[in-house]
Amino acid sequence: MRCIPLLLALALAAPALGHEKTTRIPEAAIETAAQLREQALAGDTGYRIVESLTTEVGARLAGSEADARAVAWAKAKFEALGYDRVWLEPVTFPKWVRRSESASVVGANAQPLTITALGGSPGGTVEAEVVRFSDLAALEAAPAGSLQGRVAFVDYQMPSARDGSGYRNGSAIRGKGPSAAIRAGAGAFLMRSAGTDNHRVAHTGITRFDDGLTPIPAASLTIPDADQLARLLALGPARVRVTIDAGWDGEATSHNVIGEITGRELPEEVVLIGAHLDSWDLGTGAVDDGAGIGITMAAGHLIGQLERAPRRSIRVVAFANEEQGLYGGKAYAAKYAGDLRKHQLAAESDFGAGRIYAFNTGAPAHARAATEQIAAALAPLGIEYAPDKGSAGPDISPFAAQGLTWAWLGQDGMDYFDLHHNADDTFDKIDPQALAQNVAAYTVFAYLAAEADGNFGSAPKAKEPAAN
Amino acid sequence: MRCIPLLLALALAAPALGHEKTTRIPEAAIETAAQLREQALAGDTGYRIVESLTTEVGARLAGSEADARAVAWAKAKFEALGYDRVWLEPVTFPKWVRRSESASVVGANAQPLTITALGGSPGGTVEAEVVRFSDLAALEAAPAGSLQGRVAFVDYQMPSARDGSGYRNGSAIRGKGPSAAIRAGAGAFLMRSAGTDNHRVAHTGITRFDDGLTPIPAASLTIPDADQLARLLALGPARVRVTIDAGWDGEATSHNVIGEITGRELPEEVVLIGAHLDSWDLGTGAVDDGAGIGITMAAGHLIGQLERAPRRSIRVVAFANEEQGLYGGKAYAAKYAGDLRKHQLAAESDFGAGRIYAFNTGAPAHARAATEQIAAALAPLGIEYAPDKGSAGPDISPFAAQGLTWAWLGQDGMDYFDLHHNADDTFDKIDPQALAQNVAAYTVFAYLAAEADGNFGSAPKAKEPAAN
Repeated sequence: MRCIPLLLALALAAPALGHEKTTRIPEAAIETAAQLREQALAGDTGYRIVESLTTEVGARLAGSEADARAVAWAKAKFEALGYDRVWLEPVTFPKWVRRSESASVVGANAQPLTITALGGSPGGTVEAEVVRFSDLAALEAAPAGSLQGRVAFVDYQMPSARDGSGYRNGSAIRGKGPSAAIRAGAGAFLMRSAGTDNHRVAHTGITRFDDGLTPIPAASLTIPDADQLARLLALGPARVRVTIDAGWDGEATSHNVIGEITGRELPEEVVLIGAHLDSWDLGTGAVDDGAGIGITMAAGHLIGQLERAPRRSIRVVAFANEEQGLYGGKAYAAKYAGDLRKHQLAAESDFGAGRIYAFNTGAPAHARAATEQIAAALAPLGIEYAPDKGSAGPDISPFAAQGLTWAWLGQDGMDYFDLHHNADDTFDKIDPQALAQNVAAYTVFAYLAAEADGNFGSAPKAKEPAAN
Repeated sequence: MRCIPLLLALALAAPALGHEKTTRIPEAAIETAAQLREQALAGDTGYRIVESLTTEVGARLAGSEADARAVAWAKAKFEALGYDRVWLEPVTFPKWVRRSESASVVGANAQPLTITALGGSPGGTVEAEVVRFSDLAALEAAPAGSLQGRVAFVDYQMPSARDGSGYRNGSAIRGKGPSAAIRAGAGAFLMRSAGTDNHRVAHTGITRFDDGLTPIPAASLTIPDADQLARLLALGPARVRVTIDAGWDGEATSHNVIGEITGRELPEEVVLIGAHLDSWDLGTGAVDDGAGIGITMAAGHLIGQLERAPRRSIRVVAFANEEQGLYGGKAYAAKYAGDLRKHQLAAESDFGAGRIYAFNTGAPAHARAATEQIAAALAPLGIEYAPDKGSAGPDISPFAAQGLTWAWLGQDGMDYFDLHHNADDTFDKIDPQALAQNVAAYTVFAYLAAEADGNFGSAPKAKEPAAN
């Protein structure tokens, strides 16, 4: 006989709050999950999937020829891994193309600078004096017209953090900095890469221009180049020349690629796990997000190899074009809006290839005990239950906004922003043991959620009252 | 009264071997050296010199406009540092120019590869199937004609080592690989970078083509790209397209820049310390060899600040164009061949910015005791006396071949080949404490060598008998 922890026993015994009955996971499923966990830790299926994608396809910018090859690769891989159903769903979006970029300091200290255009940047050549700002607020405070005939340079150094919290400022600068620069009159926008490394590899990522503004060339400097430009500016005025050839080029259609392990009792209900298939063009998209593809494809595969299929279906989604605006996640949410209650739980792996250290779900009270049961099954992997933390992954978030319940398997992101969106995001950076731990966690999580007796609370949210 | 170690006391007391009297360093000089040592450790002059060169000039490929600015910078810096005499000596060499380079895998796994042309490579475009060799010997064993219509790829992974010994194979591949590839019929040569990092920054460096061969495009892949190409080749045949625009472009004249602190008793005799002023074009030449410039300029400066000038002169040489064939070192040796005996000892700092861990000189028996005295003064810096190790630095070696006595201040090179000849060689990689330790060591060494009573054995070598 097993001991049931006191709090859990109380939770199971307590009458459910609200109308839902308390969700619980059968003991037999927990035993099977423990076997799956050990099997995943001993295997390398996830690692080999990442190797295959990053080697055979490499970089796969949304809408590119390589993106189309990635879609074909994903379909073939799901099939080779024995998924019961494999299908594509089209996703259409504006296509952005990078052709070339260069920058240099001109004048007495002439020297090249290494940059990368931000996604969404237009082309153009600007030569002008640089004005440095220590952060976004400083740039936003620049008076209208004050940067006329100037290049704005936001020199914010992002700190490392396990939960990636430093990226909040970094990505805000990338997203809002160019528009703020335009409002102040600047002819081009430069930023210190939103990254934590010290290598000559610039970090790209999408930017946007507010309506009514005329876009300007926008790029990030590598961190050593940002240091260099800051040192030069400390000596006196500095002029730079920035040349970008890039821009929007019509529309493209890619695909969400979906593989499903059919459930034995409730095949219409799904546990959704996934990652995004597209990548930026600079690396080979290994940690962003080949790792997530490998982790979730391998997890579904392991569950599919069981003699007895899981109670609900396991749906693995390789989302299209996350990088430029969650297009795959939005398309999925739109298509399956009517099936929201059939989605038991959903988790996306999109934070690199570091070990998972924490787990939680967004489930309401009647499913907290089941969340704790999953957490207990994950604990041997060094994963803690973090009932106050977590959120929906990017491609899950549009559906979660409608009422889908998310699960969060929090990865250690201490080194993630060394590699994120830059040329160094390559397969050699992935630790096979850490990847296997991720596969084990996703396998355990997805299997237990699929076996639960009861749901995790996915339900359409009451509509917000319309504004006057 | 100070204790003199037994062995040293015996050495001082023993009759000198041969005709030279035993060289010794006066106790007062050793006391002054100890003060200089502490002063150097507490200061940041060397660090600021590297910052100035790498920031204001940046990369300075021999013969480029930036190289000319580096010469002007060095002259002005010597003067600002209070050197008694500062002058230029012209050095002429063939000029190599890099314009652009690119490579990609073509076909079903099409993707870009990151390369850098090797110094001396001609331009050209080659598209062909790749043949991989695990090392230089394997390529040299390829039969003539066997690589017709192919690209040779030497995939040797250089190990890290404190003394940089892994570079022996790495540089041999770079130097001899292209000629071996041509002999086997190849249309282009690729190598895994001679480096120890895992970043998308390719390592350049000079290559040569044997007489009578028609040069082919020659480049190195970054280490992650070499991994990638090896993985692709493991899956089946792979074709690459390599395009290089580079080549020799007439002659250029640069300068050895020399600063001297005039000796008080024997001003015609010099202790020579130096480094090379040129760099490759990819980084900003911080560890190769801005660090050496900072270390040796700062050491001479500290000695020059003494109230009483050193007995002999301290000559600091910023050598021209080391990277493409020791042109500055050869020019110096040719110009001063008649003054060989006036060179007390010579040391070059050209192995990065890591701490010095060992010391030795090439001095004969009559100056071993003085070598040990210098070693004893260096010991508080964590430097060991290594009587069986060391050799002349690159720019010293042509003069050492004539009979100049070298000194060796061995730096820890464990990380040097992470940065060597690639874009990551930037100022942020330099640890100011380690640099100050180097300055302290060079200051102590140069000062004591200048104060010695007796010489370190520099003398023209007997000419080799002419071959029949």
